[in-house]
Amino acid sequence: MKELKKLIDSIEGGDLRATKLAKERQDALAKPPESLGKLETIAIKYAGITGNVKNEIGKRCLIILSADNGVVEEGVSSAPQSVTLAQTINFTRHLTGASALAKNFETQLFIVDMGINATLPKGLVSKDANDFIKDKIIDRKIRYGTSNLANEPAMSREEAIKCIKTGIDMVKTAKENGYGIIGVGEMGIGNTTTSSSILVALTDCQVEDAVGRGGGINDTSFARKKEIVKEMAKEKDFDDVIDILAKVGGFDIAAMVGVFLGGAIYKMPTVVDGYISGVSALAATELNPNVADYLFTSHCSKEPGYIIAMDKIGVDPMLNLDMRLGEGSGCVIAFEIIKAALAVMNDMGTFEEADINDDYLEEIRQGESF
Amino acid sequence: MKELKKLIDSIEGGDLRATKLAKERQDALAKPPESLGKLETIAIKYAGITGNVKNEIGKRCLIILSADNGVVEEGVSSAPQSVTLAQTINFTRHLTGASALAKNFETQLFIVDMGINATLPKGLVSKDANDFIKDKIIDRKIRYGTSNLANEPAMSREEAIKCIKTGIDMVKTAKENGYGIIGVGEMGIGNTTTSSSILVALTDCQVEDAVGRGGGINDTSFARKKEIVKEMAKEKDFDDVIDILAKVGGFDIAAMVGVFLGGAIYKMPTVVDGYISGVSALAATELNPNVADYLFTSHCSKEPGYIIAMDKIGVDPMLNLDMRLGEGSGCVIAFEIIKAALAVMNDMGTFEEADINDDYLEEIRQGESF
Repeated sequence: MKELKKLIDSIEGGDLRATKLAKERQDALAKPPESLGKLETIAIKYAGITGNVKNEIGKRCLIILSADNGVVEEGVSSAPQSVTLAQTINFTRHLTGASALAKNFETQLFIVDMGINATLPKGLVSKDANDFIKDKIIDRKIRYGTSNLANEPAMSREEAIKCIKTGIDMVKTAKENGYGIIGVGEMGIGNTTTSSSILVALTDCQVEDAVGRGGGINDTSFARKKEIVKEMAKEKDFDDVIDILAKVGGFDIAAMVGVFLGGAIYKMPTVVDGYISGVSALAATELNPNVADYLFTSHCSKEPGYIIAMDKIGVDPMLNLDMRLGEGSGCVIAFEIIKAALAVMNDMGTFEEADINDDYLEEIRQGESF
Repeated sequence: MKELKKLIDSIEGGDLRATKLAKERQDALAKPPESLGKLETIAIKYAGITGNVKNEIGKRCLIILSADNGVVEEGVSSAPQSVTLAQTINFTRHLTGASALAKNFETQLFIVDMGINATLPKGLVSKDANDFIKDKIIDRKIRYGTSNLANEPAMSREEAIKCIKTGIDMVKTAKENGYGIIGVGEMGIGNTTTSSSILVALTDCQVEDAVGRGGGINDTSFARKKEIVKEMAKEKDFDDVIDILAKVGGFDIAAMVGVFLGGAIYKMPTVVDGYISGVSALAATELNPNVADYLFTSHCSKEPGYIIAMDKIGVDPMLNLDMRLGEGSGCVIAFEIIKAALAVMNDMGTFEEADINDDYLEEIRQGESF
């Protein structure tokens, strides 16, 4: 923990000099002030991460953390637990929503088994994290799913720390393989229940505001889900953020917290997907507020707790697509918005460059070859 | 007018058989029902336009209509009229926001001078609409700006009809040149005043709800702008939609109405940019409601009237970027969202394809070469 704490404490905020210069350039571009809205703020924030005013979007990587959650035995999910395994395998077969998008938008998946409740076929997995570029599932299984948080801590503190470290390592590996921007996704049946529990524990929000219907549960499951989060909020006593992750989190979420920390440690722009990664991002900023300087959002999740987490971090979603699939699907689209923001910063003319005065017009009129 | 009316009346709605099949495929994809939100509805709508369930996004074209507005002599704009000319020339120099985006997202600009209050340098313009692919400004100048709508009709009925026909023709030209999807932009100082006047005339909305600060006007200009729209709403008596466009519209907006009609006539997906194109799209759907089946939105404009127009048409914006630049800048980004929607429809697996049963797992385990 000491080692991890030191690493977390070392995270710096964005480069203020670069953001200042980037803001100056935005204001000098030939347009009404702030008329490009979030495209402006995105490009300015990006400058703060790289230290340069102009940037190209880097090679894109979507880190997907898969794990199972013991709490599903409470009947809080619409889909059976086997879906975690099935969809994780389907990522490698390019059949899921996120992988269909990734294929079309030059994004490499980086799939990690953090604790799926099944033994994966040997041929699909690798212990070597670098094999993500071969579409292997990277084996970092903690164990076969967490314990049921309704009865006992989901995991030990040591396990939570191990997950976080793994997430940080995955970013390092992506960077070493030449990737420049990270999206974060997950696959884990039951993980809106863990997310809502973490959100309630991290903030003073109401249980009713934090719990949604996830993949589309019925009224009975929805009632049970709220009940579990309520009991947790009433009974559990937490030492710190890591204690929250351990007691009511999941291996996927704890690793995502690590990915967001890793983005800030290795100065990589990192994109939040929907609700689950939003809560994980919030947990990461609670560990060190500087993490927020490396975060970009994607779509506004339909899960009610999403907006609570984003408000707390102080970032706005950029897409309004009513998506709630997860898997990092929103990140792939967000990469395009970020590319657009950088395009404006790089290629749009300043008022000076775009000045059309009488001399200029005369020049064109004389040179008909223009 | 008879010829135009016949053309407008001939517009068919989307292909219901194709949309039904597309909806069935969406529901069969391996995800919680409707969890991809607007990506699903976009792909289904697209199927209705082309008649095919699976589609590739076509070559992209952004039609930009430039024109000046006589009403600027009332002091309703923050920028001088010369900006219309300057920015239209800057489109060809790839210096504007829309052209910076277009360059980075494989989008061809199709710039049309509908009535800029200046003579453009000969070398920049062409009478041949096909020359848009050479980045020429296509000369369809009606005259040097409209009349001041605060005092007299902005244009004659004949001029309005000519603008609409021009817009339709531009879509035909784009289609003949192999383009498959259209975005619509504009450049015309004063055109939020004309848009608000049209919006109030077309709907029963309040002037206060329809008038915003456009490019960023001060309180005096804002008050005058509202006053003009109020007087218009009180005094003007309109025969029909074309009469509204003639009396309080602009050459740019009337041509945009034509582009939206053209999209429906030639069965081309057509993307609304912000406020001005949104009001134009509304006018086109008032001429024939079937036009709505060919429309896609892009970003939610900061202008307050935008949402009134979109609600009336019954479409939702897909981007949440606080943009208000105009020029069609939002369309270029929307093309990427549409591409994402089509990617999911084309490449995501169905529940059947994505089924991971014991037989499948056994097969993988036996063939370690996988």
